[in-house]
Amino acid sequence: MTPDHGPLLYEGKAKRVFCTNEEERLLVEFKNDATAFNALKRAELKDKGRLNCQISARLFERLEEANIPNHYLGLSGENWMMVKRVEIIPLEVVIRNVAAGSLCRESPIALGTKLIPELLDIYYKDDTLADPLLTEARLEILDLLSSQQRIDLGNLALKVNQCLKPFFEELGLLLVDFKLELGVDYSGQLVVADEISPDTCRLWDLDISDANDRILDKDRFRKDLGGVIEAYGEIFKRVQGVCTKPRNYK
Amino acid sequence: MTPDHGPLLYEGKAKRVFCTNEEERLLVEFKNDATAFNALKRAELKDKGRLNCQISARLFERLEEANIPNHYLGLSGENWMMVKRVEIIPLEVVIRNVAAGSLCRESPIALGTKLIPELLDIYYKDDTLADPLLTEARLEILDLLSSQQRIDLGNLALKVNQCLKPFFEELGLLLVDFKLELGVDYSGQLVVADEISPDTCRLWDLDISDANDRILDKDRFRKDLGGVIEAYGEIFKRVQGVCTKPRNYK
Repeated sequence: MTPDHGPLLYEGKAKRVFCTNEEERLLVEFKNDATAFNALKRAELKDKGRLNCQISARLFERLEEANIPNHYLGLSGENWMMVKRVEIIPLEVVIRNVAAGSLCRESPIALGTKLIPELLDIYYKDDTLADPLLTEARLEILDLLSSQQRIDLGNLALKVNQCLKPFFEELGLLLVDFKLELGVDYSGQLVVADEISPDTCRLWDLDISDANDRILDKDRFRKDLGGVIEAYGEIFKRVQGVCTKPRNYK
Repeated sequence: MTPDHGPLLYEGKAKRVFCTNEEERLLVEFKNDATAFNALKRAELKDKGRLNCQISARLFERLEEANIPNHYLGLSGENWMMVKRVEIIPLEVVIRNVAAGSLCRESPIALGTKLIPELLDIYYKDDTLADPLLTEARLEILDLLSSQQRIDLGNLALKVNQCLKPFFEELGLLLVDFKLELGVDYSGQLVVADEISPDTCRLWDLDISDANDRILDKDRFRKDLGGVIEAYGEIFKRVQGVCTKPRNYK
């Protein structure tokens, strides 16, 4: 079921964003397209859009309960979400609890190393530059954020981790790392935007020790491990088991 | 003329390091080998070893005059330098006054952008990882330095810039950026090691506006601009013109 929507505003690799009849609201359609390695690897995964949308809605409602500002307004269909219009900051904000992925390719820190306190990595979101890592000083030169917003950004990302890490732990899942995109809303407040799903979080089954079998996120796609949708479905099943049905937003 | 030396301790891409009959002193031979792009590009450039050794000796003596601790003891031949034995820290410490090179490939900061204050970038020195950029937090996780040494490292690099930038300016040269390697000496002090030469500094002729013609450093080799040795010779000529003959260390 496709909700009424206005013109397409933006199409990304995994989502389309449409205008609505309200200036301050946008409709997001979660697509079944899967991409990795800066879109060098592509596939269509049936049901991925619905699963990521449904998981995201529930996680955004958890953030809401924890008073963490985000763009979510409600579901508008199985793979449709109504969100606040925000100005997206072209950064990828990554929190890592355990070393994996690019951190291990870019440093001698071994896969699986526990990071205490959690590591905050900020990348510049630009496909032509392959999303490069930014140091604090480079971020400052780019002048994308005020100094207060730079502080707020770090605090916001840490609060999301403090909310989601124990939440996933109760579901038998280790939140290895996750990527946030942040936006600035009409009032100037920094809010969590985009999605929170197995596309943007690394999640390992706490009861499985095998390094591949435990993976329940997009790494199954990146590493050709198979069972991608089954893993996303498992995440959804566990999240759904402890969350109320997300509200509808018509 | 090859000075008396003991066994080879280490061979890098541009230098060989030999033991001497004194535990605390090492002999460094500057080679004519030129490499770029993590040694994917290689050449032998006649006279490069001598020029870099002679330029380095004079620059280290400038640092010495400015009370900036470094490993230099004296020249021991045309392309041989006696240095203090230090424990090299596996970092490349880069100071940038103007955006060029990897900064422009890794961020939207345009070539030639003035960086005020200068930008400090720290890379992990590891060919197998292609010398990745480190954030402050990643550097802390690697645990290569005490927190005092991390502060000292930044201050030392800035002091080198404060010494060399105006020095080169008087020679009609813009010190665009430079890479330092640091070591810890027997007393635990952080010192500038390695070399300071057109292999490790970007230097642009201040009187030439053409973006390629002004380059007087290793970028001539990286970019296949030709005239590499002529450029290094030009730097040597200007440096030599204002410096006394470096001391010999036998």
